[in-house]
Amino acid sequence: MAKDQEPLLAEERPSSERSSERHVEEEDALLTGQQKPQQRKYGWPFWREVGLFTWALITTVLVIVLGVMYQHQQTSHPSKSGEWGKNWKPSGKRNMIFMVSDGMGPTSLSLTRSFRQTESGLPIDDVLVLDQHLIGSSRTRSSSSLITDSAAGATAFSCGMKSYNGAISVLPDHSPCGTVLEAAKKAGYMTGLVVTTRITDATPACFAAHVNLREEEDRIAEQMVGEYPLGRVVDLMLGGGRCHFLPNTTERSCRADDTDVIKMARGKGFSYVSDRTGFDGLNLGSGVKLPLLGLFASTDIPYEVDRGQVNDVFPSLDEMARTALKALSEATKDNDKGFFLMIEGSRIDHAGHGNDPVAQVHEVLAYDKAFASVLDFLDKDEVDGVLVGTSDHETGGLATARQLHKNYPIYRWYPEVLLNATHSAENLAAQLAHHIRFHTQLSKSAVSTYIRAILLEQGLGVYDATDAEVDAIMDTSDGALPAVYVFADIISRRAQVGWSTHGHSAVDVNIYASKAKHARPLIGNHENTEIGDFIREYLDVDLEGVTDELKEKGALLANDWMGKPVEDVNILAELDHYAGDFKKRGLEDCGCGLKH
Amino acid sequence: MAKDQEPLLAEERPSSERSSERHVEEEDALLTGQQKPQQRKYGWPFWREVGLFTWALITTVLVIVLGVMYQHQQTSHPSKSGEWGKNWKPSGKRNMIFMVSDGMGPTSLSLTRSFRQTESGLPIDDVLVLDQHLIGSSRTRSSSSLITDSAAGATAFSCGMKSYNGAISVLPDHSPCGTVLEAAKKAGYMTGLVVTTRITDATPACFAAHVNLREEEDRIAEQMVGEYPLGRVVDLMLGGGRCHFLPNTTERSCRADDTDVIKMARGKGFSYVSDRTGFDGLNLGSGVKLPLLGLFASTDIPYEVDRGQVNDVFPSLDEMARTALKALSEATKDNDKGFFLMIEGSRIDHAGHGNDPVAQVHEVLAYDKAFASVLDFLDKDEVDGVLVGTSDHETGGLATARQLHKNYPIYRWYPEVLLNATHSAENLAAQLAHHIRFHTQLSKSAVSTYIRAILLEQGLGVYDATDAEVDAIMDTSDGALPAVYVFADIISRRAQVGWSTHGHSAVDVNIYASKAKHARPLIGNHENTEIGDFIREYLDVDLEGVTDELKEKGALLANDWMGKPVEDVNILAELDHYAGDFKKRGLEDCGCGLKH
Repeated sequence: MAKDQEPLLAEERPSSERSSERHVEEEDALLTGQQKPQQRKYGWPFWREVGLFTWALITTVLVIVLGVMYQHQQTSHPSKSGEWGKNWKPSGKRNMIFMVSDGMGPTSLSLTRSFRQTESGLPIDDVLVLDQHLIGSSRTRSSSSLITDSAAGATAFSCGMKSYNGAISVLPDHSPCGTVLEAAKKAGYMTGLVVTTRITDATPACFAAHVNLREEEDRIAEQMVGEYPLGRVVDLMLGGGRCHFLPNTTERSCRADDTDVIKMARGKGFSYVSDRTGFDGLNLGSGVKLPLLGLFASTDIPYEVDRGQVNDVFPSLDEMARTALKALSEATKDNDKGFFLMIEGSRIDHAGHGNDPVAQVHEVLAYDKAFASVLDFLDKDEVDGVLVGTSDHETGGLATARQLHKNYPIYRWYPEVLLNATHSAENLAAQLAHHIRFHTQLSKSAVSTYIRAILLEQGLGVYDATDAEVDAIMDTSDGALPAVYVFADIISRRAQVGWSTHGHSAVDVNIYASKAKHARPLIGNHENTEIGDFIREYLDVDLEGVTDELKEKGALLANDWMGKPVEDVNILAELDHYAGDFKKRGLEDCGCGLKH
Repeated sequence: MAKDQEPLLAEERPSSERSSERHVEEEDALLTGQQKPQQRKYGWPFWREVGLFTWALITTVLVIVLGVMYQHQQTSHPSKSGEWGKNWKPSGKRNMIFMVSDGMGPTSLSLTRSFRQTESGLPIDDVLVLDQHLIGSSRTRSSSSLITDSAAGATAFSCGMKSYNGAISVLPDHSPCGTVLEAAKKAGYMTGLVVTTRITDATPACFAAHVNLREEEDRIAEQMVGEYPLGRVVDLMLGGGRCHFLPNTTERSCRADDTDVIKMARGKGFSYVSDRTGFDGLNLGSGVKLPLLGLFASTDIPYEVDRGQVNDVFPSLDEMARTALKALSEATKDNDKGFFLMIEGSRIDHAGHGNDPVAQVHEVLAYDKAFASVLDFLDKDEVDGVLVGTSDHETGGLATARQLHKNYPIYRWYPEVLLNATHSAENLAAQLAHHIRFHTQLSKSAVSTYIRAILLEQGLGVYDATDAEVDAIMDTSDGALPAVYVFADIISRRAQVGWSTHGHSAVDVNIYASKAKHARPLIGNHENTEIGDFIREYLDVDLEGVTDELKEKGALLANDWMGKPVEDVNILAELDHYAGDFKKRGLEDCGCGLKH
């Protein structure tokens, strides 16, 4: 207690009395001409000055140190320009990987996460790699509809602008808009596109082609290899869609003309691989010569659940992604600029269109694996880089709940049902078509037995199919559901998984990033065009310059170089307003097939 | 260049030579006893010391200022302990407002946003207030099912633990778990609950009651006013559910016994208001005496779309929220601790159960308005505070897309259809029941005319209903859908809004916060229990201590003080596994009514 009552630092405090005592001593010395003993050689004024100087010097150093620390802190944690600030991107060489989970809505994650927990006996808080990287969500509407298609969706990413459903990087006025990939190429980055569907499909097309309607995939193929105003802008393409590159004089072509786009690509310097052997020759990207065109399927690469069984024929999304990362990383090793790579899990969307929960969970898991590989690449790579992933829209109106009766539903859905299935509905329907084609003399009951024993039991793991369900699979009458939808419905009902449409829906989709702090402008809820803005800003490239170049050089070409303009995009709004109860209109009325 | 070569601060630097010169001058003065001329009165050594002292003093002040700034910067932008760090909460007095959007899934936002844009002619990037505050998402499964109910959902928030569907802050072993509200009260915070459903319903109950099954609302009412081991822990309750507080000897009671819980509450100090006049007397919270119990409806407060037309009878969620904020803020003005307030937009969930998009959009807008009011309160309040909002689960398997035909759907849904509706399906069905009760002699065709003219045209804005639809509304046969579902389906089809169930689904739900940086641990995807963890950490309260107290004091009570335990919660899993096609089982089979 006594100690507490002493004045703080009492011993060290200068006492004015003692100060004057010392002055007296000093004055004595001066007056008498006698030096005090050695320790008195430098007197009080001297030491006072030394003390003051030391004090000033130390605090000056502290000011400098603290100033630098504060400045550093400010730089890494800016608090201006909105909540997160602007200084989120590296200033030097950098790579950007943009991943698209086509058609994956919020429910796909909960569906797949529970499937995986059930499949592998994981705890209830086990999550996907994606789940650990969620940073926000994206609003997806297009300029022409509350429900976007993949073309308008990808145009938002590639140009940072809203356009109409069907637009491949053209605006509602039918002028082309420069894309982040084109601008990246102009700025010295190398570029790549990896997909599991046709490389000419809407999402990849929007990065390196400009056409008024997505259906013009023949034209898109030519543009993507460089036959368009900007010349070649893509250094690496891996995916499916070979048929649009082959002249219609060959058997596997789906082109309307006899243009040989493979030959065209070779003429522009591309090396070309077309099968698993060719892919394996790429050594997962080591020593690959760019530009490279790899087309491993005539149209789509099979769903992952089916592909696993023909792994010797088709590479996986993860293998293609790792190959692209390695190849682009090596090719830019000595460059000032890095690369821009778009990787799409294309067929999550197709599984949604097909309302097939089996295909869907395996597609999402394949995407999750590729996402993890990109994270691993970024962790190990010496160059700065960021991964941003999102979807263009949701497909199917998927719900992890389905009421099967008019009475009140119990709160359950059954991922274990999906575990028993070994094939997608698409594969089972193709098997059925193949079986019927090669066994034309089969009785109805023999087909029915085949469907039960091979397709439903072995393929879907369903042992309790009703006769009505088997009949529905065989029903090819006018207006009947295609077998592919019936297979999907059989498994969906048993898992109690719900779907509202075979088309898209308008729910916001998730945004993911390698690290939230590296993609700060995308934390929270955003318009899909802001994702395009982010890519442009991260790469620090000039889209307007590319747009101008496209317009200038395009003006020198045939004026339909982007195909015919859509006369009135709003005409779509007239077509499907409320038309009463469910109708069994023939599929031929529609003529639109699966638009993904 | 020459200047650059001068030593830094050369002029100011003390020179040892000049130092000794000055000492000589001072010595002269002392020796001769003569002052130097006036301008020399304070000589060089004096000014040198003043200079040094000033330098030291200025840099010392700078060190202090920079130190404080750096410290502050560190506190608001920590960079350790994971990506976002730990120092996200204020250290002094603070308030926490926790908002629950019961049953609101990701699609509810896109539905409501587009409705609002259409209604008010807003641009396509116009967003809700909520949209501007998204920070992540929450995984919702319970310990007993992939699809949670509100009880297990709210137990995750209140106790930070997973439990079984139906559990009101009890764990799977049927022991009570201390809640954040109880712990807050113990720690000196004041507490409040605001809802639009029964105050005894699962979400509010989980903060201040412990029962083994949510159905025991009579018991919950008693516990919430303080008749349980901890005594009174809630300072303010506003909402509906009056019938569980009235003895069954009175007309409006829904209790099984004659306990007068209002009287019980008064005995524990509560003041009580029971209607709009009473609410208006609260002056939006100014000068309110706490504890306060306000029960403004026998069961639920009407849906916002209907309540607007009886605004003189029922207060809105926003009015109740603002009243609670003001009252709790005033009551804690001179306290060391602030308050914890839970505000629930309870009936978004009911609109999902009813598959009613009209009721839903207005409920979400009402919640958005209350959310904005809380933000406004936080902005203006002097006390630190945070708002975190989330949902317990999604309801309905809602999709902003609905395929009406077997052919491929156009990508459209029609918010404009919802604009024409002035009432919820619930209200229209109640009008119909009332009309039939008071006009028992009406012919079927007269009822049909009433349904068309009054309910469908005026109420829903639907002028093209088919005879089959009108018949379905009137159908009361065994297994027919209740009229409330038929009304909702009529409007949903026309808007092309899809639903998969009248129950809940398992999709992740959104997390919102007043500022992302104030709720950093919740950025990204989280288990719902982490939201409970966040509340506990933000308030810095001890749940384990409360759990112990509940167990100790509970042991002194009747051993069924939490009601009868559920014998086997997994029995639910057996009940509704796949049972073939949609069935028309009578609703009486179920006996479960709407479980929210």
